[in-house]
Amino acid sequence: MSTTPDSAVRAYIDVNREAFLGDLAEWLRIPSVSADPARNADVRRSAEWLAAKLAGTGFPVTEIWETPGAPAVFAEWPSGDPRAPTVLVYGHHDVQPADIGDGWDTDPFEPVTRDGRLYARGAADDKGQVFFHTLGVRAHLAATGRSAPAVNLKLLVEGEEESGSPNFPALVAARAGRLACDVAIVSDTGMWAADTPTVCTGMRGLAECQIDLFGPDQDIHSGSFGGAVPNPATEAARLVAALHDADSRVAVPGFYDGVTDLAPRERELFAELPFDENEWLRTAVSYAPLGEAGHSTLERIWARPTAEVNGIYSGYQGPGGKTIIPAEAHLKLSFRLVAGQDPEKVQRLVADWAEDHLPDGIRHRITWLGATRPCLTPLDHPALQSVVRSMARAFGREVRFTREGGSGPAADLQDVLDVPVLFLGISVPSDGWHSVNEKVELDLLLKGVETTAYLWGDLGSSAL
Amino acid sequence: MSTTPDSAVRAYIDVNREAFLGDLAEWLRIPSVSADPARNADVRRSAEWLAAKLAGTGFPVTEIWETPGAPAVFAEWPSGDPRAPTVLVYGHHDVQPADIGDGWDTDPFEPVTRDGRLYARGAADDKGQVFFHTLGVRAHLAATGRSAPAVNLKLLVEGEEESGSPNFPALVAARAGRLACDVAIVSDTGMWAADTPTVCTGMRGLAECQIDLFGPDQDIHSGSFGGAVPNPATEAARLVAALHDADSRVAVPGFYDGVTDLAPRERELFAELPFDENEWLRTAVSYAPLGEAGHSTLERIWARPTAEVNGIYSGYQGPGGKTIIPAEAHLKLSFRLVAGQDPEKVQRLVADWAEDHLPDGIRHRITWLGATRPCLTPLDHPALQSVVRSMARAFGREVRFTREGGSGPAADLQDVLDVPVLFLGISVPSDGWHSVNEKVELDLLLKGVETTAYLWGDLGSSAL
Repeated sequence: MSTTPDSAVRAYIDVNREAFLGDLAEWLRIPSVSADPARNADVRRSAEWLAAKLAGTGFPVTEIWETPGAPAVFAEWPSGDPRAPTVLVYGHHDVQPADIGDGWDTDPFEPVTRDGRLYARGAADDKGQVFFHTLGVRAHLAATGRSAPAVNLKLLVEGEEESGSPNFPALVAARAGRLACDVAIVSDTGMWAADTPTVCTGMRGLAECQIDLFGPDQDIHSGSFGGAVPNPATEAARLVAALHDADSRVAVPGFYDGVTDLAPRERELFAELPFDENEWLRTAVSYAPLGEAGHSTLERIWARPTAEVNGIYSGYQGPGGKTIIPAEAHLKLSFRLVAGQDPEKVQRLVADWAEDHLPDGIRHRITWLGATRPCLTPLDHPALQSVVRSMARAFGREVRFTREGGSGPAADLQDVLDVPVLFLGISVPSDGWHSVNEKVELDLLLKGVETTAYLWGDLGSSAL
Repeated sequence: MSTTPDSAVRAYIDVNREAFLGDLAEWLRIPSVSADPARNADVRRSAEWLAAKLAGTGFPVTEIWETPGAPAVFAEWPSGDPRAPTVLVYGHHDVQPADIGDGWDTDPFEPVTRDGRLYARGAADDKGQVFFHTLGVRAHLAATGRSAPAVNLKLLVEGEEESGSPNFPALVAARAGRLACDVAIVSDTGMWAADTPTVCTGMRGLAECQIDLFGPDQDIHSGSFGGAVPNPATEAARLVAALHDADSRVAVPGFYDGVTDLAPRERELFAELPFDENEWLRTAVSYAPLGEAGHSTLERIWARPTAEVNGIYSGYQGPGGKTIIPAEAHLKLSFRLVAGQDPEKVQRLVADWAEDHLPDGIRHRITWLGATRPCLTPLDHPALQSVVRSMARAFGREVRFTREGGSGPAADLQDVLDVPVLFLGISVPSDGWHSVNEKVELDLLLKGVETTAYLWGDLGSSAL
């Protein structure tokens, strides 16, 4: 039940586009690399720059929130309407490391516009996608004649996402009252393609562990003892081999219990996406697809739980051979989880499974490296429908659905604040996240602005 | 049909014992560490010292044989009897590295006699065991009144055994005419225990390889791609898991074809040895036995072929986790072989097996790191019977049989010279080969002298 004339939004964006891009370029010049201690001051400067900019945009409340690591930025713009829903937008102001010596065509911290693209570290991940909210809310106000947004708008922009968000769960928990909302919108993802606008409806969860296996007290001679005592490298390998069955399904007993299977309609929607498996394989720099029987590649990476070996190491790694039975073997395993799976339960299942598979004479220790819950928004959720409508208006195209195979801080918002999490991103796969020559497509960036200009009005009149 | 009065041998040894031990101590003071380039001159000095000593012992021919690495010593003492068999004794004059800082009670290159033991690097491995042949042949001559041994005696003492004998096969091949013999006797092994004299009747062979597996062209994100492309770490682990069946038998098709199984009598002889599995496990610093079903621990390490993982490495090895699918995985495998197995055939079988087990999308490369053939002397071989008789006379005890699980240059003598290889060693497991406080038991060292004093007479009258 939108009342915003779309042409007014577009006119406002047109008039303000140059100033908006100029401001974004200024922010992109701050090398807010959270992983580099030498850039700590830059990360802080980035937070302060953003807080000042949000204040200038009109947010009546802007705050720097300290953490044991890098600071986050919080901003709030109340609607003034007691019936208005509250929306929390999430993004991050830190960026991946980048150096022109890595192979960039131009300085990663000196933004350059070329062929309708803005090149800079953080252009897509995530400064550009945070920043479209600043112009978006202004366009929403200008086009509707309002002095405050139709929703109570909150922004939380963290400074450690590229370092694994070590302090984010605690920050959200400590500030849960200030962050209270009806829905969280994460602007740190992408869409299928420039001509295929999509909304992500979920991310996989994650449970990671290290399993250490101990055999002989020291490396022993494989001639003197080989074939007569257990070899921890062999046993580590057998554990890995026992992770999957012949259908590439995870063979840990109970692993699939409770998994929310894809509805037939969701499978149809995935299948309708213009997916080219060969092109996808090139993106994966891989040479064949392989995964759970009975599921397509997109289903496997988006909607099915998996087990992967991220590392295995034991014994001799130098040139030539060394005839030893190694004393120890080590495994790094990660489990991607989907809706219906509980990381803590998976941890127990994996621990029992490992225990059951190891022979006498091999001692072991399993260490869990943290866990992230999966999140999933039902397709018929009213806030998701608002996002889809707004995006369709901005893009003039049907909006389709994707999911994200990775895992992220979205789950912390979902779990701590107990709200649904939606994803609104306009980045495309070619944007080069974490790579050289990161860029954002200017057209899409402005479609992001436009989408949010519609979204606040649409959500403001929704029953959440 | 020995004619040597044992008392004359013992008397000769008694008289010469102090001079013999003094000479050995002088040799042990030369730190002939072949693995240390800084000790190259010492290795050469050790060879020259030995050649001079053998000349002084009476060997009419003593030569330094150069190799691309460290020099070997060759000596020859013809019998003069045209019907005399020819015996080639093998040993090595280089030693393992040693430094008092490693934890030695005394300087490893300053021999010390304490409680009937001579402590020094090389005391047992292998200078002591080479050196007993010098006094042994003199005792043989003294007790029999001969001016030359009853056999044509040849000695080959290499200088690179502790560095893997890289030039030994080529040396043996190049000098095959000079080394021609009826039987080779390796004095570089041990016996079961001081009160259980034993003769080793064989060594296992060895085939070593590295298998490199290649998946994605670079590490890829396990969130974005996990569960949908093959993971080389997983495939490496599956290869390892497929190496053995549930009975711990090697599952490479054809691996056991042609294997010479233990005769019932040999199994009985093994079973009669005073073997304490718990004590053996302590030596193996391991916590349980595990091996081929249907075989005892001694059978497994001495007489059965095996497959072991010596190293496996792939992906992330640092602290914490890293959610990647690794680009590569690497395996170091070694196969111990027994009589009836051919290393080249095993290489082909393993290559085919690996090929069969890898899925589409995983490329691989297999690199063989050299091969050693197994060797085995039948229990009823007349030269073996001579050794057993001579040892029984020296020790005054029944002589039992062992085998050696490891692999060594003995196989080169067997293969290049096409002769049976016997093992005559007096070292015991507590002698600390390659470890700190290496020692030799003086009583056993002199039993070695006595054994060879009887052996040349016994062999001289044998039909080989």
